[in-house]
Amino acid sequence: MDKLSSLTRFKASCPFLGTTKTATLRTLCTSSSTRFPSLSVLTERATKCPVMGPALNVKSKEIVAGYASVAGKADVEKIHKEQGVFPPAGATIEMCPHASAARAAARMAEDLAAAAKLKAKVESAKKAKADSAAAAAGCPFHQAATEAKATEPKVATPGGFDYESFYVNELDKKHKDASYRYFNNINRLAAKFPVAHTSDVKDEVEVWCANDYLGMGNNPVVLETMHRALDKYGHGAGGTRNIAGNGAMHLGLEQELAALHRKPAALVFSSCYVANDATLSTLGTKLPGCVFFSDTMNHASMIQGMRHSPAKRVLFKHNDLEDLEAKLQQYPKETPKVIAFESVYSMCGSIGPIKEICDLAEKYGALTFLDEVHAVGLYGPRGAGVAEHLDYDAHKAAGESPHAIPGSVMDRVDIITGTLGKAYGAVGGYIAGSDDFVDMIRSYAPGFIFTTSLPPATVAGARASVAYQKAYVGDRQLKQVNVREVKRRFAELDVPVVPGPSHIVPVLVGDAALAKAASDKLLSEHNIYVQSINYPTVARGEERLRITVTPRHTLEQMDKLVRAVDKIFTELNINRLQDWKALGGRAGVGAPGAVDEVEPMWNDEQLGLLDGTTPATLRNGEKAVVDAKAVTAARNRFNTLLGKVEEAPAAHMTAGFAGFKIKAGTGTVRTSAEEVQIPTVPLMASVSA
Amino acid sequence: MDKLSSLTRFKASCPFLGTTKTATLRTLCTSSSTRFPSLSVLTERATKCPVMGPALNVKSKEIVAGYASVAGKADVEKIHKEQGVFPPAGATIEMCPHASAARAAARMAEDLAAAAKLKAKVESAKKAKADSAAAAAGCPFHQAATEAKATEPKVATPGGFDYESFYVNELDKKHKDASYRYFNNINRLAAKFPVAHTSDVKDEVEVWCANDYLGMGNNPVVLETMHRALDKYGHGAGGTRNIAGNGAMHLGLEQELAALHRKPAALVFSSCYVANDATLSTLGTKLPGCVFFSDTMNHASMIQGMRHSPAKRVLFKHNDLEDLEAKLQQYPKETPKVIAFESVYSMCGSIGPIKEICDLAEKYGALTFLDEVHAVGLYGPRGAGVAEHLDYDAHKAAGESPHAIPGSVMDRVDIITGTLGKAYGAVGGYIAGSDDFVDMIRSYAPGFIFTTSLPPATVAGARASVAYQKAYVGDRQLKQVNVREVKRRFAELDVPVVPGPSHIVPVLVGDAALAKAASDKLLSEHNIYVQSINYPTVARGEERLRITVTPRHTLEQMDKLVRAVDKIFTELNINRLQDWKALGGRAGVGAPGAVDEVEPMWNDEQLGLLDGTTPATLRNGEKAVVDAKAVTAARNRFNTLLGKVEEAPAAHMTAGFAGFKIKAGTGTVRTSAEEVQIPTVPLMASVSA
Repeated sequence: MDKLSSLTRFKASCPFLGTTKTATLRTLCTSSSTRFPSLSVLTERATKCPVMGPALNVKSKEIVAGYASVAGKADVEKIHKEQGVFPPAGATIEMCPHASAARAAARMAEDLAAAAKLKAKVESAKKAKADSAAAAAGCPFHQAATEAKATEPKVATPGGFDYESFYVNELDKKHKDASYRYFNNINRLAAKFPVAHTSDVKDEVEVWCANDYLGMGNNPVVLETMHRALDKYGHGAGGTRNIAGNGAMHLGLEQELAALHRKPAALVFSSCYVANDATLSTLGTKLPGCVFFSDTMNHASMIQGMRHSPAKRVLFKHNDLEDLEAKLQQYPKETPKVIAFESVYSMCGSIGPIKEICDLAEKYGALTFLDEVHAVGLYGPRGAGVAEHLDYDAHKAAGESPHAIPGSVMDRVDIITGTLGKAYGAVGGYIAGSDDFVDMIRSYAPGFIFTTSLPPATVAGARASVAYQKAYVGDRQLKQVNVREVKRRFAELDVPVVPGPSHIVPVLVGDAALAKAASDKLLSEHNIYVQSINYPTVARGEERLRITVTPRHTLEQMDKLVRAVDKIFTELNINRLQDWKALGGRAGVGAPGAVDEVEPMWNDEQLGLLDGTTPATLRNGEKAVVDAKAVTAARNRFNTLLGKVEEAPAAHMTAGFAGFKIKAGTGTVRTSAEEVQIPTVPLMASVSA
Repeated sequence: MDKLSSLTRFKASCPFLGTTKTATLRTLCTSSSTRFPSLSVLTERATKCPVMGPALNVKSKEIVAGYASVAGKADVEKIHKEQGVFPPAGATIEMCPHASAARAAARMAEDLAAAAKLKAKVESAKKAKADSAAAAAGCPFHQAATEAKATEPKVATPGGFDYESFYVNELDKKHKDASYRYFNNINRLAAKFPVAHTSDVKDEVEVWCANDYLGMGNNPVVLETMHRALDKYGHGAGGTRNIAGNGAMHLGLEQELAALHRKPAALVFSSCYVANDATLSTLGTKLPGCVFFSDTMNHASMIQGMRHSPAKRVLFKHNDLEDLEAKLQQYPKETPKVIAFESVYSMCGSIGPIKEICDLAEKYGALTFLDEVHAVGLYGPRGAGVAEHLDYDAHKAAGESPHAIPGSVMDRVDIITGTLGKAYGAVGGYIAGSDDFVDMIRSYAPGFIFTTSLPPATVAGARASVAYQKAYVGDRQLKQVNVREVKRRFAELDVPVVPGPSHIVPVLVGDAALAKAASDKLLSEHNIYVQSINYPTVARGEERLRITVTPRHTLEQMDKLVRAVDKIFTELNINRLQDWKALGGRAGVGAPGAVDEVEPMWNDEQLGLLDGTTPATLRNGEKAVVDAKAVTAARNRFNTLLGKVEEAPAAHMTAGFAGFKIKAGTGTVRTSAEEVQIPTVPLMASVSA
């Protein structure tokens, strides 16, 4: 549909914008075209008002959040006024189903500076010439259109392929199958975790879907370490690992990660997407006649990595050992094989049978490649992941030793990959494994070799986070306690949660439009942000709200979340658990013979429920806990490179601690016998220093 | 070769370690095995002493620098003493060709904390039991060996593929063709740019090969912005762009980059490796029957991206328009084609004929994909790259306008990719192009979709850097002036530099071993770090020292560099320019009819040499300049999100400015007429606040 005609219709159907000049309206929309690819979609929907009104409202809010700059409501009203948007008497933005679309477009287009610039342009245009009706009316569209010419895609070479139309066509496919993604604008506030501001800095929402699973992104020792590293080493690494971009911070982080997994070596990449992609593609390219065995639910990064090699890829049913064995049997024992799988599958919360897969790998001579991306920091006494968790007591007893525990599940896994961007609250990814394996990837993977390494301050922050979590189990415990509580509350209200033993709380909706609508209503009516998960991330019909509960969510926030979800389920008439049971079940929910909940990975003893050492769920206004011993352990990692904290405490190094309640040595991780006793630093003293 | 026997031979041939216990020696080596994959290579070489002595010395120094933790020489001597290493009377570490190997191993294995831990272990072992001869002697190897068992690679499944041997074999290939990479441990110090410390925090070297081309990694407004963003938003983004990881900082950076290249849209990736890989593979997969035309010197990321699609890849000779046209002609006009090339080729310093390639692209209906990774920040009045530089005056006049200049070279290029990790001193990469093109990549590229986005503070720092460089041309000018000076000095001394119009100074050595030796001598004898560039990064026989000159290198440092290179050329008898001329030339150096130097991209007028506005080369002890107007321009980008600096100046926000000389508005970039006048903030006042 032609934009102008749809805009005209848009205006005609809008009671709020009835008296606004068409040119002005168009300006509000077209001036935002840089970041607004779906204008035609929006306006098309607008013409269907009043039926489409509510849908449009939702859509526009989403677009506001996704693409807008930071202009607030007041700014929009100012722009409207300046631009000649005159609503009927008594009309407010909230009253009109279309106004929010205009507001969305305006916010997309303008922050205050841009608005000032536009005003200046209009005035300049007014003064300079009045050579057309539009210009004479001071129409900003006239000028915008003139300028827009220069940015229009160049005309395709006559007879040549029409690239721009091709792009549009590919995007239309996404719009048509509803898989086009609108990004919400979410800015998580360190001092208010788990609260974020949206495109409007004053508009705050509670975040319930981020992967900063423990709130380590604002842990004070992490931020302190980063401030110090920034001051000492500046920002970027300045080169690849081979040319000037390899420093003690990088080596230290890799040593930390190798020790975490009790493997001889580790290697850090730009992200775990790159780690998986680079490692699997290199293995598949190098190993002669390699065959991959890949769980059907594997992450895109692993799928890409396998595809980027000439190796054959055999899929096995999700977590299905029989299917895996049947497929392994079909290949000679001497054929190099890699079984690629995950510990925690992030969209459904299931956990891979790691030990049993190791058994099969040993039986059939395969390598095991385990992605612990959604598990590191969250499972095991030291946060090394599910493989560690499966031998909880042994690893707890072994403490800080970097050496493998022979026969333990973690020892039996050949290759572990993890991320620094989720539970560790940083960015980057890594692999851990044998010396020669890691050295081979280091030496052959282009995605590792030919890229600028991560900034020293970034890897320092990541290391501080890993070190902190190694020494303190309380965050892991409290997270799981809160997860249990949220699941219990949902069960009470008959809200369907996909059963699973992990920390992921997937609330089944079972319909793409409903899932989207539920997410939008949570955001717009309850200030709760939970992204809906639709196809292709999950199968059609299994759409869901994926909720991530942290140790930093308060009881009141949990209460609010559960009530809001329950309310929206009623309002949108979304199937409850009993409905799914009546329908024969879906996505593991309510199927005949299926359990409503499975045994969680963390048992009562591990959670400290038996001896009463479990940290308490926070209440509103209460400060979160930081563990002094873990802080000291993390700080000590940097004594040589950054100096001891207590010798030079600066305000910005320790100020972050003021927002936390500092507990002395509550961590339950034992240090190994030979480890030097770590003294407790008087943190509050250094804050005031 | 078995490690024990090689170690025994190692010891036998070593005058320094003659009286040291074998077990102790072994501990020093094996305890470092985690980070030391090439022990067998090292010890093998050691047995060939004294002939191999000097080679070993070089090798070991490189290993020290590359893999060692931060233990200094004194620490090593302490460890030796504690561990019972007793040299003959009068022997020092420097005297012995083998001792440095032991020192390397020791430094690799131990930082001070680890040393303390080892000592405690030994004492604990002593007390606990004396059940073997080794243990009775207090031998740390005994314990290390016991622990090491657990970390030994598991025995391959009988009849199964031997993965560990395969890795070793692949690594041996690298050792044999001398392409195995030893990473130097380089920690660039913000306060002493371009100085870095090595594995020893007290051991400082001058860095002459980093890609932080302008020193923006420690620009005070960059660090200030990052400190502020860290405090407000914490560390990690917490999710993908679609789920909680899309914030105003990301959108702001993309808007900044789009405006930089005067394109409608831009998209940020984890790195430019990922940007190139994801974009080219998506184009090659999506465009029906797509054919890539790829310059033979293209970067690995582009090559991988093309390979990761089913599209055909046609290579054309480096910068050869005739060859490119001949190949374009072979395909129908309607076939989708992508010409992938670079502006500055980083290893030889050549520059692609952008305008002429655009001509061919239009003639034959191809897209142009231009990698400006080594040019953004460095060319053009606003730092947008070579495409901008080619219309220098027009872009200078257009100032801050985000709109394309119709018909300009930058406008004619369809897709520009750039990095934030080199001249901008940060990390990350991006693409810029039409709305629908960028939106298609955003919607379809797995490498963009399924990865945690960059941290808010990281993208804030990057944006501050881009904004600063947009507003200040002085760094670009001074860099090129210094490049000219270094090239001139080398020419005077007959040191062969591959001729080129860019900022890269490739000093031709023409032999892998000599290039490595020259690099090692620069580091060990002159405290100058220039990584040697060998095969496969450059062709065999074209090995070189790739020198990067910054605006922050002082005249004295330049003098020292040139003298040191000259000295080493004499000492190692490396070919001079006249030698290459006599030999018929190589790699563009000294070939018959070839020029000794080509016209630089920056002309005298652009450098400010004609009107005397060129910034002066720094002298030792002099503070570098920061431009107040550019600082204000950068700060103003964050007024809404982080607040105005002058309203809340904190010590750590402005302290970084103390190291610089602040000049008021020396930038030569004009602001466009409609732009609000930027006031100059009293920087020093806020420092003292």
